[in-house]
Amino acid sequence: MTDIMTRTETSTATPDDGIILGPNQYGKAEVRVVKVTRDGDRHSIEDLNVTSQLRGDFQAAHLDGDNGHVVATDTQKNTVFCFAREGIGSPEAFLLRLSDHFTSSFDWVKGGRWLAESYAWDRIQVDGEGHDHSFVRTGQETRTAVVVADGDERHILAGLKGLTVLKTTQSGFVGYPKDRYTSLKETTDRILATDVSARWRYAPDAGSRDLDFNEIYADVKRILLEEFTRKYSAALQATLFDMGRAVLAAHPEIAEIRFSMPNKHHFVVDLDPYGLDNPNEVFFASDRSYGLIEAAVTRDGQAEVPAAWEAAGTFC
Amino acid sequence: MTDIMTRTETSTATPDDGIILGPNQYGKAEVRVVKVTRDGDRHSIEDLNVTSQLRGDFQAAHLDGDNGHVVATDTQKNTVFCFAREGIGSPEAFLLRLSDHFTSSFDWVKGGRWLAESYAWDRIQVDGEGHDHSFVRTGQETRTAVVVADGDERHILAGLKGLTVLKTTQSGFVGYPKDRYTSLKETTDRILATDVSARWRYAPDAGSRDLDFNEIYADVKRILLEEFTRKYSAALQATLFDMGRAVLAAHPEIAEIRFSMPNKHHFVVDLDPYGLDNPNEVFFASDRSYGLIEAAVTRDGQAEVPAAWEAAGTFC
Amino acid sequence: MTDIMTRTETSTATPDDGIILGPNQYGKAEVRVVKVTRDGDRHSIEDLNVTSQLRGDFQAAHLDGDNGHVVATDTQKNTVFCFAREGIGSPEAFLLRLSDHFTSSFDWVKGGRWLAESYAWDRIQVDGEGHDHSFVRTGQETRTAVVVADGDERHILAGLKGLTVLKTTQSGFVGYPKDRYTSLKETTDRILATDVSARWRYAPDAGSRDLDFNEIYADVKRILLEEFTRKYSAALQATLFDMGRAVLAAHPEIAEIRFSMPNKHHFVVDLDPYGLDNPNEVFFASDRSYGLIEAAVTRDGQAEVPAAWEAAGTFC
Amino acid sequence: MTDIMTRTETSTATPDDGIILGPNQYGKAEVRVVKVTRDGDRHSIEDLNVTSQLRGDFQAAHLDGDNGHVVATDTQKNTVFCFAREGIGSPEAFLLRLSDHFTSSFDWVKGGRWLAESYAWDRIQVDGEGHDHSFVRTGQETRTAVVVADGDERHILAGLKGLTVLKTTQSGFVGYPKDRYTSLKETTDRILATDVSARWRYAPDAGSRDLDFNEIYADVKRILLEEFTRKYSAALQATLFDMGRAVLAAHPEIAEIRFSMPNKHHFVVDLDPYGLDNPNEVFFASDRSYGLIEAAVTRDGQAEVPAAWEAAGTFC
Repeated sequence: MTDIMTRTETSTATPDDGIILGPNQYGKAEVRVVKVTRDGDRHSIEDLNVTSQLRGDFQAAHLDGDNGHVVATDTQKNTVFCFAREGIGSPEAFLLRLSDHFTSSFDWVKGGRWLAESYAWDRIQVDGEGHDHSFVRTGQETRTAVVVADGDERHILAGLKGLTVLKTTQSGFVGYPKDRYTSLKETTDRILATDVSARWRYAPDAGSRDLDFNEIYADVKRILLEEFTRKYSAALQATLFDMGRAVLAAHPEIAEIRFSMPNKHHFVVDLDPYGLDNPNEVFFASDRSYGLIEAAVTRDGQAEVPAAWEAAGTFC
Repeated sequence: MTDIMTRTETSTATPDDGIILGPNQYGKAEVRVVKVTRDGDRHSIEDLNVTSQLRGDFQAAHLDGDNGHVVATDTQKNTVFCFAREGIGSPEAFLLRLSDHFTSSFDWVKGGRWLAESYAWDRIQVDGEGHDHSFVRTGQETRTAVVVADGDERHILAGLKGLTVLKTTQSGFVGYPKDRYTSLKETTDRILATDVSARWRYAPDAGSRDLDFNEIYADVKRILLEEFTRKYSAALQATLFDMGRAVLAAHPEIAEIRFSMPNKHHFVVDLDPYGLDNPNEVFFASDRSYGLIEAAVTRDGQAEVPAAWEAAGTFC
Repeated sequence: MTDIMTRTETSTATPDDGIILGPNQYGKAEVRVVKVTRDGDRHSIEDLNVTSQLRGDFQAAHLDGDNGHVVATDTQKNTVFCFAREGIGSPEAFLLRLSDHFTSSFDWVKGGRWLAESYAWDRIQVDGEGHDHSFVRTGQETRTAVVVADGDERHILAGLKGLTVLKTTQSGFVGYPKDRYTSLKETTDRILATDVSARWRYAPDAGSRDLDFNEIYADVKRILLEEFTRKYSAALQATLFDMGRAVLAAHPEIAEIRFSMPNKHHFVVDLDPYGLDNPNEVFFASDRSYGLIEAAVTRDGQAEVPAAWEAAGTFC
Repeated sequence: MTDIMTRTETSTATPDDGIILGPNQYGKAEVRVVKVTRDGDRHSIEDLNVTSQLRGDFQAAHLDGDNGHVVATDTQKNTVFCFAREGIGSPEAFLLRLSDHFTSSFDWVKGGRWLAESYAWDRIQVDGEGHDHSFVRTGQETRTAVVVADGDERHILAGLKGLTVLKTTQSGFVGYPKDRYTSLKETTDRILATDVSARWRYAPDAGSRDLDFNEIYADVKRILLEEFTRKYSAALQATLFDMGRAVLAAHPEIAEIRFSMPNKHHFVVDLDPYGLDNPNEVFFASDRSYGLIEAAVTRDGQAEVPAAWEAAGTFC
């Protein structure tokens, strides 16, 4: 690889038409790697969906069809499998290792983003005990992780999605502005239901690489569930903020947390035409449209890191 | 409604071209009903997706555009919501009530099929206790139910789908025929993974309407998980049969059980080109193609009931 | 393979508990095969998703873990790719060849089912002409095909799904029975929208293997679109029957046709509260619930073939 | 609404724990509006999925449960339907009208984002002519639009997704770096296939609101298809850049264009073990993993507008 590593990074000239390459990233998406760890007869399983995308000097590939810098997406995939051979540990730790590898192995790779979804498995209970090597997928939420590399800097985001929660009461919505287009009736007793999607960013100080990401994840999930539950909800916005605040209050190593939460409407069915009352017992669960409430909860005076959130989202 | 109930059921004449109406059913699909039961402060929740389709004399609607017999699908939906007002209990019991209503209310309705998916919710744990009115969707498998009415006869099928299980060892595949197109290598140690889809049919004797469907469901699920686990799997076919046999052996009220199970391939990644061994630790989880193993486990000498299974499946 | 072909088909004894194997089929699902045919510089493309499942004597695999009869699903997949090497032609012809191969190569294979989805591609227009080797996926409907083998018998079904059609007027729904649960208002002007799913069965006489399946497919699709359009729709049932009748009238080689069609509700939005009229101009397109209208159109006096339809549907 | 409009915008004090609200937006997602325009007997149809989210001073809702500023998501939905009464025209123009309404009606609404997907319909051909009121959904790609409001400023993005294209030759991949993890073989003849997702941003000068968005859309789609086709592809990166450059060269009103394109691998099946050659004729279309190539093509010296792209993507 010496010839490649010493390749001169001559920037390709801007074309005469003034049309140039803007931000770009490329790699292999959705590498479905399953790692079995065999501690004698007792096996454990890690189940990930990994995406690796590189950033750096890839201008020649785009403008000149010169792939001299293009670490093949196939190579990126193989690297994921090879690194899994040495163990995963946590999605965040695994992505950090991948990010270090690519940015240190190819000098034109200046950064990138690495993403993982992971799927939890429970041991199947047989005769009251968790089995050694047989598992059932938990199915509740999907855990997510992102590592963004920008030179030596690393942004670490953890998260979850698809955690569906519902409270049958202690939720209302009143006091909102009424205009010509308002027909919604106020209520102090409704179903509140959402699919929690959240990502939190770890504070980038020295120790963040060595956190126990799995333990923190479990605790954040616990807090989210509890805070969704505890208080009367004046609106999903207020509940969202309470959930975020509780996470930040309990976890100083977390710098900020973002949520995207649908308000999954459950409409009380009007049974009056059929001679029946309906004291908030029979609901129609609607698919679309739905409310969409999105907000960040953060710490005062702290630097913003838009690059981390941009990388966690979609490119376009 | 007297005028309708007394409507003479004159069969529409076959058109001159000899083209006639064949089997048919119609109704409302995917009615998303959520029932909250309030036992004081302690709430419980039932969450169903209900489909209702009627069969009977609907020839005039098809051939003559005469809707005199067409109980509106909107009416069927309303009926689902109204019946939920009186409680659900179990999906099977709820569908039985719907089937009785429609076949007894309209004399040209000779039968039909009623289907439900149901989604389980766990109480959110707060301070170590299940909360009164706040829930998290379990997310593991989807429970299913079908009731088929054919005159007074009722076929009751219960089931589940999307129960994803995996064993990291104690599975192999050897001794299969080799022909010109065979390249698969034999193995006695592989991952076995599947999404269990199963339906079981209750024996149609007098007591079947009064079974504790919820309790049986929980026990069948327990047995399926345990039997998937217990033995070395010589093939998914053998494991399927063991699972079915154990269910029938434990539940005399179940006449037969059917499975549709993908063999979700997890391929050992060849790390040799990269200088690494891989003693069944790193796998690639493949999406497509997949094996598809389908079989019924039944009781010797028992009458077959193709109409029940036909109704549980797709129309075309 | 001689040893396998001469294997005695001793039926495994029924277990003492009277629990036996019922109907079963197994194979490889969703083999995504793309065939490029290069007629000089002018290429053409066939894009299929093929499923192959065998039926026959597979009792030993289920009961005894003896795979001596289990033609590996991997072998079935390889066979699909190898057969594609010699060309596809039409999905139906391709599945017929597969069915003949498996039933003739293994004497315990008594039948099976072979399914295909196929995806249409248009040539990309460049400077007003269809390009030689560059294509865009049509995206409209998915074509389907099924071949069911039962010994020497072959049932051939063609079909389509996901053909989404809508008429903005010339549709109504009146004259339906009203009961306690009816609140729907009659209308003679509504949107009618559906996703057409249809399968038609070719008459099983000698010539059916040599039909021009591609040409018939195109003509059936044309007829379905035209008949959906032509007449006032008194209900989706009536429109369905008209569509089926027109297909059978034009194609004597088709024995019957089945439809499964959702009534995709488009509700007129009540803009009155906001001081606006709405003369059937602004609609809300609802997801769930939806009507579900299913019926067969067939020929008088013709034998029914339930096995074909059962095989086209889901196993459970 | 006077009381609301005059409400003093007292910023809620930062809580003592230093935990504050960060960026946020909320509204109604996926309003499925279908607009029929009746020009005598000749009808036309517009079919959109609209999302509306507001930004501004919503702190009290999050921190204090005070909804005085929360324009209900239900109100936003109603507004979409009411505005559709007056016609849609183009998705971009429709979203601009919505953005103007919300930012001018509520003085604490400082901006927001409005998104639309739209679905194309063709007239059904009957007797060789496009029918007056009967349509079939085109099904090829989904058109997208985004309007971002930041005070008086408007960013307008148009786009498409799901445009699936494939070329059977004139694509290769050579000259890439080889390292320890590289096993990919070079090729100068492979299938290139992708689902084009693209968004382009209109230059924000005075005239951009009055562009003929529908006509530009059609022309951009044409160019994308043609440029995908024209040249030998040295990599998807090079083809992407060519596609973008051609769009910018032809459309000075477009400031930049971004792409996210999977490299949908079609692997040549090795038929050698079965005694067959395979001169690039039989391919396996793989689902996952896939390459993921993302890049912007822009103009030299032009200001970047990260806020537009951030709003077009996911929140977290």
